[in-house]
Amino acid sequence: MRKQGIGEDELFCFLEAKRNKDIRYDLILSSMCTRPHPVAIRAHNLFMETNLGDPGLFPGTHEVEQILVTRFAELFSCPEAGGYATSGGTESNIQALRIARQIHPTKRPNVILPASAHFSCQKACDMLGLQMRCVPPDKEMRMDTDVLAGMIDADTCGILAVAGTTEYGVVDPIPAIAALAQEHGIFFHVDAAFGGLVLPFLPDSPAFDFSIPGVSSISVDPHKMGMSTIPAGVLMVRDPLVLHRLNVDTPYLTVKKEFTLAGTRSGASVAGALAVLDYLGRNGMEAVVSGCMENTKRLIGGMEAFGIHRAVTPDVNVATFMPCRIPDRWVVSATRNNHIRIVCMPHVTRDHVEAFLEDIGELNVTAT
Amino acid sequence: MRKQGIGEDELFCFLEAKRNKDIRYDLILSSMCTRPHPVAIRAHNLFMETNLGDPGLFPGTHEVEQILVTRFAELFSCPEAGGYATSGGTESNIQALRIARQIHPTKRPNVILPASAHFSCQKACDMLGLQMRCVPPDKEMRMDTDVLAGMIDADTCGILAVAGTTEYGVVDPIPAIAALAQEHGIFFHVDAAFGGLVLPFLPDSPAFDFSIPGVSSISVDPHKMGMSTIPAGVLMVRDPLVLHRLNVDTPYLTVKKEFTLAGTRSGASVAGALAVLDYLGRNGMEAVVSGCMENTKRLIGGMEAFGIHRAVTPDVNVATFMPCRIPDRWVVSATRNNHIRIVCMPHVTRDHVEAFLEDIGELNVTAT
Repeated sequence: MRKQGIGEDELFCFLEAKRNKDIRYDLILSSMCTRPHPVAIRAHNLFMETNLGDPGLFPGTHEVEQILVTRFAELFSCPEAGGYATSGGTESNIQALRIARQIHPTKRPNVILPASAHFSCQKACDMLGLQMRCVPPDKEMRMDTDVLAGMIDADTCGILAVAGTTEYGVVDPIPAIAALAQEHGIFFHVDAAFGGLVLPFLPDSPAFDFSIPGVSSISVDPHKMGMSTIPAGVLMVRDPLVLHRLNVDTPYLTVKKEFTLAGTRSGASVAGALAVLDYLGRNGMEAVVSGCMENTKRLIGGMEAFGIHRAVTPDVNVATFMPCRIPDRWVVSATRNNHIRIVCMPHVTRDHVEAFLEDIGELNVTAT
Repeated sequence: MRKQGIGEDELFCFLEAKRNKDIRYDLILSSMCTRPHPVAIRAHNLFMETNLGDPGLFPGTHEVEQILVTRFAELFSCPEAGGYATSGGTESNIQALRIARQIHPTKRPNVILPASAHFSCQKACDMLGLQMRCVPPDKEMRMDTDVLAGMIDADTCGILAVAGTTEYGVVDPIPAIAALAQEHGIFFHVDAAFGGLVLPFLPDSPAFDFSIPGVSSISVDPHKMGMSTIPAGVLMVRDPLVLHRLNVDTPYLTVKKEFTLAGTRSGASVAGALAVLDYLGRNGMEAVVSGCMENTKRLIGGMEAFGIHRAVTPDVNVATFMPCRIPDRWVVSATRNNHIRIVCMPHVTRDHVEAFLEDIGELNVTAT
């Protein structure tokens, strides 16, 4: 590192030049992140120096986290549910599977999940020494419940399903899976990192939450459709006591036990998450989600008009298509099956969709 | 959640009231976090919406992370070292032990660490299924190398030692431990979450970094003495290739493999960490660290003048004392051995130290 520091002007000239190399969200159609809402940024700055890892020092910030948890408890149809703010969907999934392993200890524990599960599950299973049993998808890319049923054995400590898959935006058949989990007494985690802030605001959405007996835990990422700042994940559990199965002693802090994965945890994005939910209210979130779904439908309609067919009909604002040529300036992604994948996040406006479709038309439609 | 959102004024009135319940840093003598440096906050805001988890979308932010890694590679005496920005010391320790387990697979792997190791190690060992062998401290609260030597066996996949312990601020005898690790071919991780941004700036500090053969990895938290925003951790590895042992496939991202623990990762605090290092330079960091060490010495001197003796002589700016009465308004913490513990962070100025000593004197010295 340099002996003498550089001036603030020079430093920010340098940092701004780096920042300008990043792709603008306007052109990003591939991400489940989005521009944070202005109230999230303002709240983030208000709580910038707080540490939820030492709640006795920051009792006000701790209350904000608790309020956020009650918001999700209510939104997910179980006012008595508990939870905490994680560093994102990966920590949430790791912690859920860790609880599952703790509740049902066996020599060779396994977890059953759909092949469509987020790659964080692979990290979690590797870390936790869990055998990962992957259920292949049905034609609509949802978890096949019959195959799942055949995979359950005495060593199955957990089942994970997804409400709003990263690749195809579909919701696994949560009620049927929950019934199986309940029948066998197995911990059942619903990864709603994406769908958790979409599905509750749709008029006719597939069921996925604690209203279904047998759902043990749900993860949701406010830094996705909740338009909070990164990192903002939340892990919700039907029975708040199961979190304490992960307790370790924390001497020299203001609390003496801790069940979180991370130690030091900023309250900034947690306050950001609550700020957006309270500022928009249910009406506001419905408007945001409805706009994203409308754009998704328009995109699918527009692409199909060009003969580029959808891969599946999604439950949330993720659209997938048969392979086609993509204009250079837009960033889309590809699924493992080589389908084109576009996420209609709040930063993807109707104007963006129309501009994208125009470019697609020019590139893919043969002049007649 | 409410049907109708609330106005921005009302929302921030509510959030500010919560924030005002938090304890001000002026009175916090127990934390290893501190007020972020103003350039960290400015940089944080500039990179607020970036996601290092999808580096192809944010190539400029990715470069900032790479530059931060090269800063630490140089600071820790190994320009070829690699690394990445973690969510803090817990992720860094988990990942280091995960690499150790991966390199040396055995049926019943164990890790040897000092009893003084941070509680994140207990989380890591629980998750990773590693037997935790704790070396009791010597009189100065450092790891006893002779005891350590006797604990090594064929199933030992890793050794962890601490450079700047959380409780007593001492540095384990890293060169002697490294020699043992090297002799047995064992992965050796140095947890320098706190000391990593203190020791390099001290005139006569104990050796702890890659200049010692046998040190395999080092973790450091810029959100502690680096005065960055939370969360800012860094895991450094001597051989950058070992990180790839943790790779999972990441379809639908702009990169196809990922070795980090978290998926979505904000670039904000990473830019904050680099901003502080470059703005202050080595001279500036030396001044900050020297001020904190002076305050630590003054505090120890002042307390001992009242007959309240130090527990140990620390290597970094953590002071510990025999039990005594603490004036209500100050927040200190207690170690597991019931010693009073005070961390002289940058927000703890000489004025704070003098005011604290005055209060202590009034409370603890019997009128003669």
